[in-house]
Amino acid sequence: MAKHYLAMDVGGTNIIAGLVDEEGRVAARHRFPTRSSRSPEEVMEDMAAHLRELAALAPEGGKPEALAVGLPGWINQQAGILLKAPNMPGWVDVPMAEIMSRALHLPVCLENDTNLYALGEWLHGAGRGLDNLLVVTLGTGVGGGLILDGRLWNGSFASAVEIGHLPLGPGGALCGCGRRGCLETVASATGMSRLGRQWLAEGRPTGYDGPPEELTPKVMHSLAQKGDPLALAVFREAGEALGLVLSAIFNLLGIEGVVLGGGATGAFEFIRPSLWASLAARVIITEPENLKLLVSRLGEDAPLAGGAALLRENMYTRS
Amino acid sequence: MAKHYLAMDVGGTNIIAGLVDEEGRVAARHRFPTRSSRSPEEVMEDMAAHLRELAALAPEGGKPEALAVGLPGWINQQAGILLKAPNMPGWVDVPMAEIMSRALHLPVCLENDTNLYALGEWLHGAGRGLDNLLVVTLGTGVGGGLILDGRLWNGSFASAVEIGHLPLGPGGALCGCGRRGCLETVASATGMSRLGRQWLAEGRPTGYDGPPEELTPKVMHSLAQKGDPLALAVFREAGEALGLVLSAIFNLLGIEGVVLGGGATGAFEFIRPSLWASLAARVIITEPENLKLLVSRLGEDAPLAGGAALLRENMYTRS
Repeated sequence: MAKHYLAMDVGGTNIIAGLVDEEGRVAARHRFPTRSSRSPEEVMEDMAAHLRELAALAPEGGKPEALAVGLPGWINQQAGILLKAPNMPGWVDVPMAEIMSRALHLPVCLENDTNLYALGEWLHGAGRGLDNLLVVTLGTGVGGGLILDGRLWNGSFASAVEIGHLPLGPGGALCGCGRRGCLETVASATGMSRLGRQWLAEGRPTGYDGPPEELTPKVMHSLAQKGDPLALAVFREAGEALGLVLSAIFNLLGIEGVVLGGGATGAFEFIRPSLWASLAARVIITEPENLKLLVSRLGEDAPLAGGAALLRENMYTRS
Repeated sequence: MAKHYLAMDVGGTNIIAGLVDEEGRVAARHRFPTRSSRSPEEVMEDMAAHLRELAALAPEGGKPEALAVGLPGWINQQAGILLKAPNMPGWVDVPMAEIMSRALHLPVCLENDTNLYALGEWLHGAGRGLDNLLVVTLGTGVGGGLILDGRLWNGSFASAVEIGHLPLGPGGALCGCGRRGCLETVASATGMSRLGRQWLAEGRPTGYDGPPEELTPKVMHSLAQKGDPLALAVFREAGEALGLVLSAIFNLLGIEGVVLGGGATGAFEFIRPSLWASLAARVIITEPENLKLLVSRLGEDAPLAGGAALLRENMYTRS
């Protein structure tokens, strides 16, 4: 009988939990709000209830092998502790693996959420077959995971790659991290909204006449499809910034490709041209045509598929 | 009897060849001009003559095991071919391993020069014990080699890391690669000289009254020791640029340390403060005090020690 796994992607706003088979296919999923105003203990009870329901759906009365949890923060994987999650106040030094393991009677493994995303896209999605690959998520922030030589890269500090805070140059907009000019001030969903509002306030020509705070990447995507110059300029700017940072990473590491994922890739058709132009003008490690610029195939299932892969391949140190 | 190796570091101006023991110690070395106006064949005859003399110095009449050649360009290591070397006109698609092997009756391995430098500093120099390490050389250009997870990183395109062409931001000085704002326009010896001359022409206060073209990093080092404001500003600018790019690499990869080498590190006492300030302000992957900022211990022996290590460890694919 095929093995099944539980996987969960915890975001600051929503949680997605799934029952995943050995091939990374999500057989069933639950989506529920994080409700971060409640205590970690209460939220974990919520999680356990959803995961128990999903576990009961395992075929032929089977039991999932283990649970992988993707978290938007810093973890100590060996100890199974969530150290800190910027968008989840109160979640500090939470022994989450132990608590969830006791609630579900399953081994539990924690991992950074973008690392799970990268594993999923690499093993089951758009990045299949590329052993040197960067996966970038454009969401509230800009996250990333790096596959080097056919392995998830963790570095010396067991962290995900901080691609969102790579600098675009001196100056620039203030970032949530306290510095200026980080990639995510321009290329994240938040950054694109900020840029849109700023240009709206400066009176740039646009057909948009709604409230500034509702000028989201999704709204700008619709506007761009109608040729709106402000929306097109925002995506062009995001693409240029991504191209600048990605070319630096290609030149540094000689990786073969990048997979772009996350909510803001809905508008990829408008981001791609300036991204590619900016990238191709700066890559010197190889001819640009040797590089693969790919879009996520699994979307929000990527971290779930990645979680199952992590458990299946035993790519962690605690069970 | 201890094994011995031949290693050679080929630069655009000078060549250094050495007889190296198993511990990476250089027992004897020859330094001679590259004479790049002559044909590659003639230069290789020169090389072979020097290497034969060095081989004859192997103790107890022993014969060196093999030769490692560090080259300032792109190579095909498996085929033993130097594909292109920007500072050595005429050296295009040279089957150097075969030619040198025939001349010396030894196995020959080619590698990028900065990769050999990195191997040397990692295994026998300042970077010992750090399994995730960047080695940066500040010379005519800015080069680098990356040790990831205890191995020399080559990426998908068998190249060295192009750290010299990582961007400092939009605009900036024109680089030899045809783009603007590359790190080496500011942080290489050439870049520092350029900056010094530019500020001299702009009339910045300085005690220097010699010809602009003689305002080298070495001269500026002497000036800086006397407190010369122009020289100090050049090193400060180079340090800031290095800190910006190094912080991006630390944040991306979570490596533990960096070793700085090359001629321009003579003035490291004046580069270090702004480098560290710029780095510490931008690193978010860990506390800055966890990062090691080191200076080359082997100097120009580093690529020779690295060459011997490459041969000893069989870290190549052709013999």
